[in-house]
Amino acid sequence: MGSTDEKEEYTYENEEREELTEERILQMLDERKFKELKEELEHMYPVDLVELMEDFTQKQLVMVFRLLAKEEAAETFTEMDSDMRETLIGGLTDSELEEVMEEMYLDDTVDVLEEMPANVVDRLLMATDEETRQQINQLLQYPEDSAGSVMNVDYIALRKEMTVAESILKIRQVGINKETIYTCYVTEKRKLIGMVDVKELLTTSESKTIEEIMDTNVLYAHTTDDQEEVAQIINKYGLIALPIVDHEMCMVGIVTVDDAMDVLQEETTEDISIMAGVSPSDDSYFETTVLEHVKSRLPWLLFLMLSATVTQMIMNHYESALAVMPQLAGFIPMLTGTGGNCGSQSSTLVIRGISVGEIEFGDLFRVIFKEIRVAILISLILSVVNGIRIIVMGQGDALVALTIGLTMACTIVIAKVVGCTLPLVAEKIGLDPAIMATPLISTLVDISTISVYFAIVSAVFSL
Amino acid sequence: MGSTDEKEEYTYENEEREELTEERILQMLDERKFKELKEELEHMYPVDLVELMEDFTQKQLVMVFRLLAKEEAAETFTEMDSDMRETLIGGLTDSELEEVMEEMYLDDTVDVLEEMPANVVDRLLMATDEETRQQINQLLQYPEDSAGSVMNVDYIALRKEMTVAESILKIRQVGINKETIYTCYVTEKRKLIGMVDVKELLTTSESKTIEEIMDTNVLYAHTTDDQEEVAQIINKYGLIALPIVDHEMCMVGIVTVDDAMDVLQEETTEDISIMAGVSPSDDSYFETTVLEHVKSRLPWLLFLMLSATVTQMIMNHYESALAVMPQLAGFIPMLTGTGGNCGSQSSTLVIRGISVGEIEFGDLFRVIFKEIRVAILISLILSVVNGIRIIVMGQGDALVALTIGLTMACTIVIAKVVGCTLPLVAEKIGLDPAIMATPLISTLVDISTISVYFAIVSAVFSL
Repeated sequence: MGSTDEKEEYTYENEEREELTEERILQMLDERKFKELKEELEHMYPVDLVELMEDFTQKQLVMVFRLLAKEEAAETFTEMDSDMRETLIGGLTDSELEEVMEEMYLDDTVDVLEEMPANVVDRLLMATDEETRQQINQLLQYPEDSAGSVMNVDYIALRKEMTVAESILKIRQVGINKETIYTCYVTEKRKLIGMVDVKELLTTSESKTIEEIMDTNVLYAHTTDDQEEVAQIINKYGLIALPIVDHEMCMVGIVTVDDAMDVLQEETTEDISIMAGVSPSDDSYFETTVLEHVKSRLPWLLFLMLSATVTQMIMNHYESALAVMPQLAGFIPMLTGTGGNCGSQSSTLVIRGISVGEIEFGDLFRVIFKEIRVAILISLILSVVNGIRIIVMGQGDALVALTIGLTMACTIVIAKVVGCTLPLVAEKIGLDPAIMATPLISTLVDISTISVYFAIVSAVFSL
Repeated sequence: MGSTDEKEEYTYENEEREELTEERILQMLDERKFKELKEELEHMYPVDLVELMEDFTQKQLVMVFRLLAKEEAAETFTEMDSDMRETLIGGLTDSELEEVMEEMYLDDTVDVLEEMPANVVDRLLMATDEETRQQINQLLQYPEDSAGSVMNVDYIALRKEMTVAESILKIRQVGINKETIYTCYVTEKRKLIGMVDVKELLTTSESKTIEEIMDTNVLYAHTTDDQEEVAQIINKYGLIALPIVDHEMCMVGIVTVDDAMDVLQEETTEDISIMAGVSPSDDSYFETTVLEHVKSRLPWLLFLMLSATVTQMIMNHYESALAVMPQLAGFIPMLTGTGGNCGSQSSTLVIRGISVGEIEFGDLFRVIFKEIRVAILISLILSVVNGIRIIVMGQGDALVALTIGLTMACTIVIAKVVGCTLPLVAEKIGLDPAIMATPLISTLVDISTISVYFAIVSAVFSL
């Protein structure tokens, strides 16, 4: 949190140099100190530079962009959000665009293209050579969120007959263009048959063949696998990259650990949004317009508001009881609130347990058994504390305290059981468990709380 | 999600070999087929093996463990949870323990030691040589959750006078013991002055010196920095490892990307727990006992239950109004529910925005302005839909519909503004924004909803 505020702390060189800020860049552009700016830009990380240029005009963006070295320019372009990219593209000449497209990694190019409006895509594809264009079209065909759509098609392929010395030579020749050469893959007629770590190559006798040192126990995924699954494999096994194969086991690309981290972060943001009753979107908070925010939040609110009608109907049924003892209504927000909180604690823990792979449907009864024990202990403590409060504050006599205590105990047990069961059932029937989080649980718990409350009230006070 | 079910899909070799299951291991142990089991175990990933052995007895664990190659044994030990580790340690001889400790990476050793009871720690430290013991003690002194506590002390340090050829030679000599040699660090009198990627070494002329090719623009962190900040830097800049320095800029270790991924996952789980009103713990759901679950959930429940007293006091104040029009109580769960959901949508989006670094305190007014516009649109739609419902279902006349609509509009605006403001204020004053999630927001929103509702009801119906 807040790591960007302390950025200067993390770069050794910056201790000796004044940090480049938005104001300083604009000032240097104004004063046409291009040579100095160019020099300073060399020491900027693309992701930091993009943060500084957030409010730049097209002209300013283009001026800075032209001062960047080729490779940095491509990386900076990759880090931009789609609005900034579109603005910049509008100001670049065709040949400049061509250079950027040449330097970008193919998986980044595809990401860029997927976010751009059709006319910009056309211009970008025009700036690409024929071979790359074919590869791009190939990648664009993989379903969204599939391994194929996030993979990188640059990797080092070795043959099993090669020696270690030959392999190192091959890496020296072609490696400079690859995003990662830390793991090399051994293929035979394009089929993946093994892998060798560069570490292995550097620490083994040069005359050994790849076949002697390769690891044939290779983890891999298919192009059509879900990107989240791929990211979780990379995370679970602590990999730098995971090879991706097509349905004939031919190797077509790799997914690298930095992409996996991004995927996990995105999926977590998605889960958290869903858990709060917001339809997830790929855009960040500020990138989302007011109308889009309304669209993503309204469905659940509408559904839940209308579901609350059930609670209302139950209460209307007991209208006469409320007319006689109106103070009973005062306990309702506390009862539904406590029930809702208990339910959301259970559902949240179970949803997270499912998504990190600890809990699965087979554990249902183990989870329920645990939640029931937790619920009984919690309801005992809360009921007693609340009973004392009611009597001390003079909000009711012992009978009222008992009624509220009983209701609370039932509510808590129901809330915890419903809260832990629904996410697991959702997972089982192929829904996203995150749907079963706080908003839905608390509406369901409201209904059961009110039913239980008035059933007990009617029985105790014969209303 | 559910990736473990499909595990066999990801290992090329497994297509030709029957998969090793818990039952097959136990059967082979029973039939004393140790040689075959040993062979099959060679193809297992430690993390998968640990999953299979979850329900093994001490004797079974020790038998399997003795069949593993040294390095695999250490890795498998690292992957175990603390209970399994303790069971296993109890069954190992001192010399076996010594071997495991020798093979483990120092950062993993420290993790293990931190989780073990004192008598086990003593036994483990006895099984460690003097030099390692000193390093361990050093690492144990870093504060919990600091960069120092998760870093690895094995890395390749080069001097700037070395040539590329000499550097590669050094890596070949010592590299096999290092967890990562993908990035080498250049130090001068132990101070970090630059870094070189192995990629760079392999693709540059062998006679160049390190000084000529090293990158002096090195990102780094301090031993006392928070592990989450370190993980976010690794994620933001797409690094494989980040060097860690002490207060004198001397390099003491590295944090690798796989550890960073684990840190981010843990911190997310922590955030999600806090957002549901559960005190976070390092243990997983099943590792946490019932009593610990109660202890981690009770404080918020108690606090929120007692806060709900405020709502009750407000309602008691309007007891006479309820006695006259008891049907008014029926609308309360719907109003508080809708308010709570609106508030938690806003707070959740802002909390996530803060934790991924998009939103900060300076954006407060921009966020509030956005939320108010969203709130107005949403409240218009919900009020109209709800008004129609009330009249159609005969739950009230146009005046009732208007009262409820007005209350709802006020509630939604208040809920959204409170929901987006509190996490940012929390961040500003140094609290964890996640505390300001659903449970607290919905209690606050309950109070404001009830106040607004009865104020409007009293005015409209002159009660």
